[in-house]
Amino acid sequence: MEEHELRRARLAELVAGRDVPAALITDLVNVRYLTGLASSNAALLVRADGTALLATDARYAGTARRVCPELELLVTRPVAVELATRAKAARLAYEEHQVTVERHGEIAAAADGELVPLGRAVEGLRQVKDEAEIALLREACALTDRAFDAVLPTIAPGVTERQIAIALERQMVDLGAEAPAFASIVAGGPNGAVPHHRPGDRPLAAGDLLTMDFGALYGGYHADMTRTVAVGEPAGWQREIYDLVHAAQRAGIEAARPGAAAHDVDAAARTVIVEAGHGDDFPHGLGHGVGLAIHEAPLMGYDRTAKLADRVPITAEPGVYLAGRGGVRIEDTLVVRADGPEILTRTTKELLVL
Amino acid sequence: MEEHELRRARLAELVAGRDVPAALITDLVNVRYLTGLASSNAALLVRADGTALLATDARYAGTARRVCPELELLVTRPVAVELATRAKAARLAYEEHQVTVERHGEIAAAADGELVPLGRAVEGLRQVKDEAEIALLREACALTDRAFDAVLPTIAPGVTERQIAIALERQMVDLGAEAPAFASIVAGGPNGAVPHHRPGDRPLAAGDLLTMDFGALYGGYHADMTRTVAVGEPAGWQREIYDLVHAAQRAGIEAARPGAAAHDVDAAARTVIVEAGHGDDFPHGLGHGVGLAIHEAPLMGYDRTAKLADRVPITAEPGVYLAGRGGVRIEDTLVVRADGPEILTRTTKELLVL
Repeated sequence: MEEHELRRARLAELVAGRDVPAALITDLVNVRYLTGLASSNAALLVRADGTALLATDARYAGTARRVCPELELLVTRPVAVELATRAKAARLAYEEHQVTVERHGEIAAAADGELVPLGRAVEGLRQVKDEAEIALLREACALTDRAFDAVLPTIAPGVTERQIAIALERQMVDLGAEAPAFASIVAGGPNGAVPHHRPGDRPLAAGDLLTMDFGALYGGYHADMTRTVAVGEPAGWQREIYDLVHAAQRAGIEAARPGAAAHDVDAAARTVIVEAGHGDDFPHGLGHGVGLAIHEAPLMGYDRTAKLADRVPITAEPGVYLAGRGGVRIEDTLVVRADGPEILTRTTKELLVL
Repeated sequence: MEEHELRRARLAELVAGRDVPAALITDLVNVRYLTGLASSNAALLVRADGTALLATDARYAGTARRVCPELELLVTRPVAVELATRAKAARLAYEEHQVTVERHGEIAAAADGELVPLGRAVEGLRQVKDEAEIALLREACALTDRAFDAVLPTIAPGVTERQIAIALERQMVDLGAEAPAFASIVAGGPNGAVPHHRPGDRPLAAGDLLTMDFGALYGGYHADMTRTVAVGEPAGWQREIYDLVHAAQRAGIEAARPGAAAHDVDAAARTVIVEAGHGDDFPHGLGHGVGLAIHEAPLMGYDRTAKLADRVPITAEPGVYLAGRGGVRIEDTLVVRADGPEILTRTTKELLVL
């Protein structure tokens, strides 16, 4: 069975298990996961008996016929409403975390039966990747590493954050990436204390720490890597927080085993930072699942119940941010594996002094 | 009064007019419009008495304090739920076209009173731009024109769609754009028959029509321009559909006056194409409003009731698409003005033969 068919079969089984005749999938990433079709306007009806009906508009109809010829196709603009009409189901499961209140009203009016929440069923299936997905993610990470290598020699005092961000993004595309996986963060000196700093026109200066958080998009899969480097010989406090974040990241990765609670993996890294007295300087979660979306379940440090499993790709990205002074973040994309994590981003984590 | 304060005052007046004590704004573009803050996690409570409370998380708190120091700020992660809790309103208007069913449940649980739909009130305010907004849009369009001029000499047989798309996007950024305003469409030869073709590895060939649909993002405002050029001397049918689309576009722009129904403006252009027997080959609306989002109200050809007004920027982008052969689309971004439209994209619309 082809991979998308297999995914639809898994969802159909879930739907049947809940005693619902059909599910209406409207989240576009979920539709892509279940069909292979990347579209800005598409929806999928999956019936408990395993059959499915795809809807998209005229702009994507040709692509849909090429990408998923096995699927019955409905070409229409109001995709969700039209599928609800055709569902003829006494109960129709829908993605209540994705559907707006307004759209819910339209779907309810079109459906024959009652709308019932599906929850994040497809997101749940998406967490564990097959090896074909992991291969795409591995390539996305390799492109990210190579872009870093190519840009590293150009980093020097006087170069601006924005210039570095553009150079990284162009390298990734020139090496074969579809696009950057997300808006790159490049933060020098005091800007490094802002976890989500937008690259600006500040030129690098000797004595800066420089944090670069970026990644390549390849085959729909998102790489995510952060490295912090020193511009000139680092001061004592800079090396100290670097070593601390590095140790915390090692502890987090160490804990990332199948069966581990996402919360415990976060805690393994966080404890290292808290014990060094910097707990308040690490104000975000350890990381997140990654795949067809840049942020997926599990969210480590926020999800209270999530557990890791074999073949779940995640990021591990602790940081320490000192307002007005600077910061360090070190991040890898890795795959949780029974025999120990597979680190996909391979760039060195020794402190590079430029 | 500063522009964002003025916008909030207008919204407060609307809210007061509906006899609702407060409105919870969760659409991120609407939050930006009302505060100046661009964030991936923010919400705004606007009270009928004109006061307001902004919520965003720690990542954006510093930016919020700098961009809108006049606003009371709440730093929290669950921005909408927290603002609903603080609203203490017997009735709270919310954006039902933006809020998911799941989030609605959370907000309703947190709010003291009843949730009532606000509708697209802020989107309505956003349609008519002030001159500062139009100045940003004008600059975005100027950058778009200049990128076209710079890339034009490199277009020749053998160059791929993807190479042209990348060249246009890099030129815009090098000239000062924040980023491309949307994923550029570059479609050569038969690919030109697909209105939303994704640029691929097909090399240009003599005899192709080449359609380029792209634009610059500047100061948050989106330019949108399409030009179709001929690679080598055009065949009769190519010049014929080019002239037809050009005439249709002129008719559409001519009709774009304050007070005109959006539907009539679409019809003015469409009639030209229909009368030439190509009605079925123009399967999309004439254009859309444009501003802080690439697609805004009014949607010309879809909105049944919208009317244009002075200072509403729109696109006019008719096309004719012949499956298997190719297509033509010509698009400008323009501002509806009492004394006639101001065309912001200035690149020639004579058929360029390369």
